[in-house]
Amino acid sequence: MKTRLFTPGPTPVPEPVMLRMAQPIIHHRTDEFRDVIRRVSDNLKYLFCTAQPVLTLTSSGTGAMEAAIVNTLSAGDELVFVNGGKFGERWGEIAQAYGLTPHQLAVPWGTAATPQQILEMLAQHPATRAVCLTHSETSTGVFTDVQAITAALRQQGYPGLVMVDGITAVGAHEMRFDDWDIDVVVTGSQKGLMIPPGLAFIALSQRAWEFNQTSTLPKFYFNLAEARDSLKADDTPWTPAITLMLGLDEALQMIRHEGVENVWARHGRLAAALRAGALALGLRLFASPSSNAVTSITLPEHGGAFMKLLKEQYRVTVAAGQESLKGKIFRVSHLGYYDEADMLSILFAIESALSDIGHQHPEGAGLAAAQGVFNQAARQRQGGA
Amino acid sequence: MKTRLFTPGPTPVPEPVMLRMAQPIIHHRTDEFRDVIRRVSDNLKYLFCTAQPVLTLTSSGTGAMEAAIVNTLSAGDELVFVNGGKFGERWGEIAQAYGLTPHQLAVPWGTAATPQQILEMLAQHPATRAVCLTHSETSTGVFTDVQAITAALRQQGYPGLVMVDGITAVGAHEMRFDDWDIDVVVTGSQKGLMIPPGLAFIALSQRAWEFNQTSTLPKFYFNLAEARDSLKADDTPWTPAITLMLGLDEALQMIRHEGVENVWARHGRLAAALRAGALALGLRLFASPSSNAVTSITLPEHGGAFMKLLKEQYRVTVAAGQESLKGKIFRVSHLGYYDEADMLSILFAIESALSDIGHQHPEGAGLAAAQGVFNQAARQRQGGA
Repeated sequence: MKTRLFTPGPTPVPEPVMLRMAQPIIHHRTDEFRDVIRRVSDNLKYLFCTAQPVLTLTSSGTGAMEAAIVNTLSAGDELVFVNGGKFGERWGEIAQAYGLTPHQLAVPWGTAATPQQILEMLAQHPATRAVCLTHSETSTGVFTDVQAITAALRQQGYPGLVMVDGITAVGAHEMRFDDWDIDVVVTGSQKGLMIPPGLAFIALSQRAWEFNQTSTLPKFYFNLAEARDSLKADDTPWTPAITLMLGLDEALQMIRHEGVENVWARHGRLAAALRAGALALGLRLFASPSSNAVTSITLPEHGGAFMKLLKEQYRVTVAAGQESLKGKIFRVSHLGYYDEADMLSILFAIESALSDIGHQHPEGAGLAAAQGVFNQAARQRQGGA
Repeated sequence: MKTRLFTPGPTPVPEPVMLRMAQPIIHHRTDEFRDVIRRVSDNLKYLFCTAQPVLTLTSSGTGAMEAAIVNTLSAGDELVFVNGGKFGERWGEIAQAYGLTPHQLAVPWGTAATPQQILEMLAQHPATRAVCLTHSETSTGVFTDVQAITAALRQQGYPGLVMVDGITAVGAHEMRFDDWDIDVVVTGSQKGLMIPPGLAFIALSQRAWEFNQTSTLPKFYFNLAEARDSLKADDTPWTPAITLMLGLDEALQMIRHEGVENVWARHGRLAAALRAGALALGLRLFASPSSNAVTSITLPEHGGAFMKLLKEQYRVTVAAGQESLKGKIFRVSHLGYYDEADMLSILFAIESALSDIGHQHPEGAGLAAAQGVFNQAARQRQGGA
């Protein structure tokens, strides 16, 4: 039986990527592989909208978050982070593990920090050397406007770093690393990049590289200056995850072919359709503002039975709530290799499971609402053409 | 045209592993994936000959070496390491990066440290808390008798840790982690485990876990106590490299099916045949004692042309010398998914390239010598049966 994956990491892997990774393996210290590194590097810059090198690490996204901290800061440094979900919280945990002084801005899970709140934190903690944000908080489905926050900070003359966990945002949301004057962005492979987990990516601004020169936290495997120097020779300090790099090469070419702005727009369109469909079925959305990578929906009554039906009867895998949100929400991914028809698939499964548990709703309302969004978007594109 | 890989990492990936990894991706927080973790975990213990948990990290082998240090030691701790190649050297570099006090035992590249030398280092540095060894030094092809060294240390009542880089040794050489009273062994996925790079493995003894309790070096991504606790629930602290784990599941079942002692014996047989073949062709071996994972051979005259012929004319990829051995040796892998016929392939390529550069040798001597080793081994197996 056919099964469908709607989780915000891993996300579905395109068939050309799977087949590329299934070829006989090649050695990494060869001209053939150096060509791959060169092309990947160029396309990652395109995706991040940056002229800075984007470094590839063999690790999960968390490894890149740790790399961000240990390569720019020193023990005792003050840092502000937003705890609005499990991944925002992680910035604070890493800071703690390395003997920094983290100041937490706690916002209710399901909501985002505003520029004003961040400025207030800075006013309270003027020695802050880094502000750590989460562009799309995977655990809640919340979008944080990192562009606006960074602009507000820069306007106040903030000389420190802005670090962005873009793990589920890169590819789903506009991210103009250089233009927005952000200092660190990290992402992971099993997200908007559409390949299996195992790689993480990190870009540092000129300002972040300057911080790197005085950073005294210990680092070896995650030493980014080494990675940057190796990359100049199309190489990596340690053996790279070769097959994942080959898959990445394929996936990045797909993104470049579609065009990054079209990729962002597609994510916006799919997210809007899914949200419209869920609302039309009488469900409630959990997050505000909503991420274009993942939509969090409040579980209906008989949530356990509903989740079981989705998985077993309708063969779709969605993500459950994590930590305090366990049993309260479910999360549907539209991050990566998805199109319009995929949103119809998941809305059909959701509506079917709702009917099975006796939930009242107008038949077909979910599909109709989604189709409405798609048709309107198509008309706008035609009008604009 | 058919190409063949004879590098000591990556090593060839078996077809069933490639196909398993090319299936549509599954989510990692599912019963299906927990079954994989459980089976992998059981088979890793079998491979390491240990009752301790073997932890899987998403990183290269270097990440696991770093994990070994940061999870057991504290700043200022004294450590003895053997520099007899690029990878032995790495223990010292990691120790340095984390503010330890490393004492180097330098042995000429191409040779191994003896138990006596290690005991002398310990006598000079009695506060040593860890001795770091390299079971098979990939850069030189040298085998170090970690069993004998550990036994000698324990006999002297050494209370510290013995840490073994088993990156190219696990699977190629006997390794009885519990019986030999070793404290840490690390390995990587793209070696004897026959899957692509991206995973590393580490086992800690009871003694090492006790060191863990007082270790104050900072760690987050590589926090092994977290990994151990997650593994109890068939889980990982961070998103695992799912497809590599599925490939690993397949590869470990192949190893278990063959039997780990048979796997060790096969590596011994293939290594012996390759060495006999190289000697019969008038080549000189570089390493003593020799690793069963990789054979280092002194480059003949016109070494550059010879290497180019191997790659371009005979389509075999071998490894060049690294650092001070660049241009002096080449290295041939027999680590992982190789059999008798593979050794004939590489000896045929070597002999052909030698002939092309005008090297004098008895025609067919390499193949004949290898076949002699195989036939003798077969007679011994039949005699023993």
